[in-house]
Amino acid sequence: MTDAAIIGIGQTAVKEHWNTSIRHLAWYAIEAALDDAHTTEVDAIYVGNMLAGHLSNQNHLGALVADFAGLRGIEAITVEADNASGGAALRQAMLAVKSGLVQTALAVGVEKVTDETGNPVDAALATGLDADYEAVHGLTVPGAGALLMRRYMHQYSVSVADFAGFSVNAHANGANNPLAMFRNRLKAERFASGPVVADPVTLFDAAPLGDGAAAVIVTSARRAMDMVPQPALIVGSAIATDTLALHDRKEVVWLTAAEQSAKRAMTQAGVKPEDVDLFELHDSFTVMAALSLEAAGFAQRGQGWQLAKNGEIGRDGRIPISTFGGLKARGNPVGATGAYQIVEVVRQLRGQAGDCQIKGAKIGMAQCLGSSGATAVTHILRMIE
Amino acid sequence: MTDAAIIGIGQTAVKEHWNTSIRHLAWYAIEAALDDAHTTEVDAIYVGNMLAGHLSNQNHLGALVADFAGLRGIEAITVEADNASGGAALRQAMLAVKSGLVQTALAVGVEKVTDETGNPVDAALATGLDADYEAVHGLTVPGAGALLMRRYMHQYSVSVADFAGFSVNAHANGANNPLAMFRNRLKAERFASGPVVADPVTLFDAAPLGDGAAAVIVTSARRAMDMVPQPALIVGSAIATDTLALHDRKEVVWLTAAEQSAKRAMTQAGVKPEDVDLFELHDSFTVMAALSLEAAGFAQRGQGWQLAKNGEIGRDGRIPISTFGGLKARGNPVGATGAYQIVEVVRQLRGQAGDCQIKGAKIGMAQCLGSSGATAVTHILRMIE
Repeated sequence: MTDAAIIGIGQTAVKEHWNTSIRHLAWYAIEAALDDAHTTEVDAIYVGNMLAGHLSNQNHLGALVADFAGLRGIEAITVEADNASGGAALRQAMLAVKSGLVQTALAVGVEKVTDETGNPVDAALATGLDADYEAVHGLTVPGAGALLMRRYMHQYSVSVADFAGFSVNAHANGANNPLAMFRNRLKAERFASGPVVADPVTLFDAAPLGDGAAAVIVTSARRAMDMVPQPALIVGSAIATDTLALHDRKEVVWLTAAEQSAKRAMTQAGVKPEDVDLFELHDSFTVMAALSLEAAGFAQRGQGWQLAKNGEIGRDGRIPISTFGGLKARGNPVGATGAYQIVEVVRQLRGQAGDCQIKGAKIGMAQCLGSSGATAVTHILRMIE
Repeated sequence: MTDAAIIGIGQTAVKEHWNTSIRHLAWYAIEAALDDAHTTEVDAIYVGNMLAGHLSNQNHLGALVADFAGLRGIEAITVEADNASGGAALRQAMLAVKSGLVQTALAVGVEKVTDETGNPVDAALATGLDADYEAVHGLTVPGAGALLMRRYMHQYSVSVADFAGFSVNAHANGANNPLAMFRNRLKAERFASGPVVADPVTLFDAAPLGDGAAAVIVTSARRAMDMVPQPALIVGSAIATDTLALHDRKEVVWLTAAEQSAKRAMTQAGVKPEDVDLFELHDSFTVMAALSLEAAGFAQRGQGWQLAKNGEIGRDGRIPISTFGGLKARGNPVGATGAYQIVEVVRQLRGQAGDCQIKGAKIGMAQCLGSSGATAVTHILRMIE
């Protein structure tokens, strides 16, 4: 079977791009990725996006983005899986290349969310929850995060302050990333007293929504080696799902889909958690970071928060996470987030992470989640040696 | 490379399903397809949908539909390409199977559009047009159809009445399809005097929007032969795109993407237009049927309408189209339409088309289009012999 490898990456800053349309955002990331891969030949585009239909009145992004990026006519579709859309788009690009029917595929995650604020955005994001059983009763995405955090605190006897390490780490890393939305450092002692978003979730706990686009170009490993000096092999790739509604899950504070997709990806890659040098996880809320570490096998059940508390998630720690700031500090451009994670892992493996570099990073893992882990997309990358 | 084959099909009636939620609709089609394939094992679901976010406040359909269909946990995403979403979902299912990473994949197109009427639906559909250059100026989907029809009439000196044969044929076939939205016959002499939707498009010209779901199960040809008596091989599959905005196209009355995707699929299948026994095309408006016939090579440029006029698109004609009523009489459930076409082609090839049967049908082709042909998805099927 054809091995798939990443030959090009590109990204925009995550911020409030008020003067940039969604097609421009996508184009900037695609252009950077094409430059990076020294190619102009792409056969298919997979656009990861969740909210353009709602917030930009624009569906049908596949054809639109292909055209605007100068690739008019090629195969193109939109892939949606809530906040995991960007990772799901990469999965489709990889499947297409592995099928042998598509030579070079490009996954671009793009989202433009800050033109609106408040209710329209909350309502648009809530379409990723169960409309008939959750959103209709007023549940919002931060509300779901708050339910999970409250339950986690109750079940494992931890306090809000115990989650501080996640945000402190994210902001410390984000401070070194020129493309991050927030580059300020956060003091641990400020964490628990942040303005409340949805009790117990505070502003220092919840990842900010931002606009942005990130692109990844995939081709066969054989071609990749002739094209670029540092192709990154996709050695693991898996999507798993769970119920959208939290009340339908057997155990609310366990991310079954995250566990399953991580397990499958690790099996494919032939790696164990201790082999992974960095893990770009889905820290949309600090509790999600804790749950992700547990689901992926980096911590025992109920103990994910301890990794943050004990400083094991930092650049020199046991399992560095959010190395460019994560969702919390780099920003969360929803449907683009999963693509940003991949770009960041590739930069780490290439040794191009600048002040965010994890020394000697050889195996990198990325996992993005759709609405509280109802969709989990995991990828594991390593350089061709 | 793994050949992909269809082992199961299922569909609901296309109608106003006011008492059925979108997850139920999808489930009914999936259940029928699983029954048809005599299996319960599916590894990945590709949901083709365009409008659920707008009209049902529900995105993230992949995980939701997988769960509700009793397949909780499996890989699942949503695929969107305007009115071509259902065909694009099948394409992803096929690529997944051909990649060797997914053993059995299910594509389900689902749409629920009739709970709302008027402006909300028009606005939701218009998100498939170019938001910044078309929809913002008030263009609607029927408006775009009208522009194309007017231009076609001008350029090729044809009248509204010259298109009558398309709708007459669709309704004649739909009358024999118990699942069709409209089973009434239409008299050619009534055609041109229908109530105007967007001049020159009338009610007898435009396909009605309906709710519905259709599902298709794909696995490798080798497994398929052991599983079901009549697997249908996917011998051609291609997506091509074009500009969303009509004004950006070099020639407005030529569907470049439809041409390209048909050509690629035919090349893969090793067939010519004269080898094709039936063609489920995208007759959202009669002019789209004419343009599709031309783009796919069944008629010369500007002469597609003559096939309808001369009765060559009927059950015994040179190239039967819309054999179960097409979008015009079976109904157009937007993101599900492309999946209905595939179900219909399979029924024809199996000889299970009842009163809609094309005698001796061996090679069937389906093509669905997103907003005036900005996306074109073509599949060619034949039975394993």
